[in-house]
Amino acid sequence: MALDESFLQQACAIFGERLTDAAAVRQAHGLSEAYHAPHPPDLVVFPESVVEAQQLVQLCARFKVPMIPFGAGTSLEGNASAPHGGVCVDMTRMNQVIEINADDMDCRVQPGISRKTLNTQLKDSGLFFPIDPGADASIGGMASTRASGTMAVRYGTMRENVIGLEVVMPNGTLIRTSRRARKSSAGYDLTKLMVGSEGTLGLITEVTLRLYPLPEAVSAATCPFTCLSDAVRCVIEIMQMGLSVARIEFLDAVMIRGVNQYAGMSHAEAPTLFLEFHGTEQGVQEQAQRAQEIALGHGGEKFQWATRPEDRSRLWSARDNTLYAGLGLRPGAKAMITDVCVPISQLAECLIETQKDIVSSQLIVPIVGHVGDGNFHLLILVDPENADEVSRARHLHDTMVERALRLQGTCTGEHGIGTGKIDFLEQELGQAVDVMRCVKAAIDPDNIMNPGKIFRKETAGA
Amino acid sequence: MALDESFLQQACAIFGERLTDAAAVRQAHGLSEAYHAPHPPDLVVFPESVVEAQQLVQLCARFKVPMIPFGAGTSLEGNASAPHGGVCVDMTRMNQVIEINADDMDCRVQPGISRKTLNTQLKDSGLFFPIDPGADASIGGMASTRASGTMAVRYGTMRENVIGLEVVMPNGTLIRTSRRARKSSAGYDLTKLMVGSEGTLGLITEVTLRLYPLPEAVSAATCPFTCLSDAVRCVIEIMQMGLSVARIEFLDAVMIRGVNQYAGMSHAEAPTLFLEFHGTEQGVQEQAQRAQEIALGHGGEKFQWATRPEDRSRLWSARDNTLYAGLGLRPGAKAMITDVCVPISQLAECLIETQKDIVSSQLIVPIVGHVGDGNFHLLILVDPENADEVSRARHLHDTMVERALRLQGTCTGEHGIGTGKIDFLEQELGQAVDVMRCVKAAIDPDNIMNPGKIFRKETAGA
Repeated sequence: MALDESFLQQACAIFGERLTDAAAVRQAHGLSEAYHAPHPPDLVVFPESVVEAQQLVQLCARFKVPMIPFGAGTSLEGNASAPHGGVCVDMTRMNQVIEINADDMDCRVQPGISRKTLNTQLKDSGLFFPIDPGADASIGGMASTRASGTMAVRYGTMRENVIGLEVVMPNGTLIRTSRRARKSSAGYDLTKLMVGSEGTLGLITEVTLRLYPLPEAVSAATCPFTCLSDAVRCVIEIMQMGLSVARIEFLDAVMIRGVNQYAGMSHAEAPTLFLEFHGTEQGVQEQAQRAQEIALGHGGEKFQWATRPEDRSRLWSARDNTLYAGLGLRPGAKAMITDVCVPISQLAECLIETQKDIVSSQLIVPIVGHVGDGNFHLLILVDPENADEVSRARHLHDTMVERALRLQGTCTGEHGIGTGKIDFLEQELGQAVDVMRCVKAAIDPDNIMNPGKIFRKETAGA
Repeated sequence: MALDESFLQQACAIFGERLTDAAAVRQAHGLSEAYHAPHPPDLVVFPESVVEAQQLVQLCARFKVPMIPFGAGTSLEGNASAPHGGVCVDMTRMNQVIEINADDMDCRVQPGISRKTLNTQLKDSGLFFPIDPGADASIGGMASTRASGTMAVRYGTMRENVIGLEVVMPNGTLIRTSRRARKSSAGYDLTKLMVGSEGTLGLITEVTLRLYPLPEAVSAATCPFTCLSDAVRCVIEIMQMGLSVARIEFLDAVMIRGVNQYAGMSHAEAPTLFLEFHGTEQGVQEQAQRAQEIALGHGGEKFQWATRPEDRSRLWSARDNTLYAGLGLRPGAKAMITDVCVPISQLAECLIETQKDIVSSQLIVPIVGHVGDGNFHLLILVDPENADEVSRARHLHDTMVERALRLQGTCTGEHGIGTGKIDFLEQELGQAVDVMRCVKAAIDPDNIMNPGKIFRKETAGA
């Protein structure tokens, strides 16, 4: 879109050299890590304060210019691309820890800080922020996409761990969605409304996060299974026993092959669980032993476990390298990464049927899953120049998502809708999407906050 | 209000004898357990199906008649009274468990089922629903007020434990807010928007709940402290150690006196903590021992603990009788029950200053708190006929709430706003309340769902 001259002048007056329309910067901000077509913004600005962020929103509101909040650029569904042009608001210069409240086990941070930087800064407090989506995402971005990852089975997702937000609303007012108390029943839960709204309802300028004590002891385990159903059944029993598992990850045989190649390891090429327990020395030993007994009951005879840090990281290193290990299975290919989440009782069926489709697709598609939550990812390895492959990949993707929906699941467990899953959201929630549209239209009547994401403006029938 | 004749005829056609304007029934539905002035509805109806509930909403929408959803009538802030008249929708006949999914550890229930009835029906599954607000509230009501209670420190509140809802929206459409997957990042979190909205955004017709394995072992403990600060400091350390405490409750000396009188016990009349741990046999022993060490470090020398059920219930019986024990301190008095919640670092100050005000008020006011969350309740014992007393009670109440807000807390941790805390919500969240109004106006433009609750329709300045 052509931006108004007067708008540009005023934006320059706020941001000076922290405003750019350089092609390389715009390109970098239109892409993220998604496989979707890039849509660069017209401008990129880098606010350094809440005041600047608010001034920008007020200016954009006056000229009805779209804004796209941007963090680390690690989103996967086109969540931060700019299909309607406008201003990309790169929040990475607002990356400070504002306060750490050790007694309350919480902290206030600016949205541009990355989760790893935050954890580095938390070290002396004896606390940590557990949500780990893999990438070193920004906290603001993680809040916006309702991210989760490996630790969600124990510590919850961003949904459970954002205590409150400061947000510039589309009309330019600055609000706090809640106080710092651990719980509240004071009015609508605007915090949770904002978490997962992918920047479509406002610009997050501060995040209050729940923190946890660093575990006194950690034990880790891996176990291969003869078949996928046995592995899933084992997970279900571990959960039903109430074992306080901190992570419970699944790698299919293809992914294990990739890991073996990538890291020179020799895991059995079989569906494999990776587990981690957090607790006291005595507690984590007991938990691992119980998990072993359960695994044995499902044919998991090669259960290995470790408590010493070096042994644990050896055991888990396979899990920690899945992206590059996956890509290594087909050098030069790109990965279409996608996720679904189903009730765990439906997980084995969902995975087995998906594996059959993978065979039919003749593509290499490793699977990795946060199976304690019923969540798994496909890394569909394709040559993006090969239209036939891309079409087979697309078909595989769509079939899997539709299957997850049939099995009472969701089209995305943790990546968000972005542009990539817009059509599936309607399938998933039907008329509830109209309620979302109604909320969006009320809060952002000019549709200037990250337009074109989550849902189309009009209903399918309209 | 005078209800339209045609409206009445059509309502009768739906509900027949399950529609009444009998004074006694109306009175009973205008009151709840709140100390606030009762506001009876014009009519009470008892739907028995989703179809009837939806027909009712559509009818009320056509005639712009207010609807007030009603569960067990145990709310405390006038959440279910009818200040604008209209139809009270008593959901207690929709009280069935629809399905229990043991593998997924969840269940679908109708909103009128009470939490105790649900737990009775869950018994054979080895699972339980932990949220325990004290009263035997309905699940729909608990979702509506974002209830919590003693177990929240371990299991979360209704916010964390409602997986999804079926809701009749004010325009009569029936939606599901989410699928049954454990997590999702598919669009706005309508589930969490509805939880805590106190019936102002729609009529809940089904609730999907998260369940937990019954703990293999439970240990319980009590410990009196010389002063309140020591007790709170002990709680903070227990939380920071990451002990997996399932309940951690505080009774002040006045409440202990009440308990001693009521149940013929002989607890030291001192600020006292009640603790409970859930886990394995070995785990709960270890946790209790660690808690004892921490308590000792804060002068808690009379730490008592127990694992056998009969010993545990003896220890905890004091905590389980606080309402009647409190009322027993002043026979004939009524209790104004209210709650606030602050960051735990502010809890000691908030409690100590409140106790000073209690002394000044010359009223008897026992305190009981879910201190792991920073949440506590006053039971202000008053003679409602004595205007001076009521005024002193009111002053005590308001001063405490304002203090909690100054200390970064919330005006209600778990009772909701209802009519009782409307003015404090504005103090607490400022312009964020305008965002709530904006959402309300968009979803319920005719203001027919539980009008007059949570906020006034217009801003204070308007």
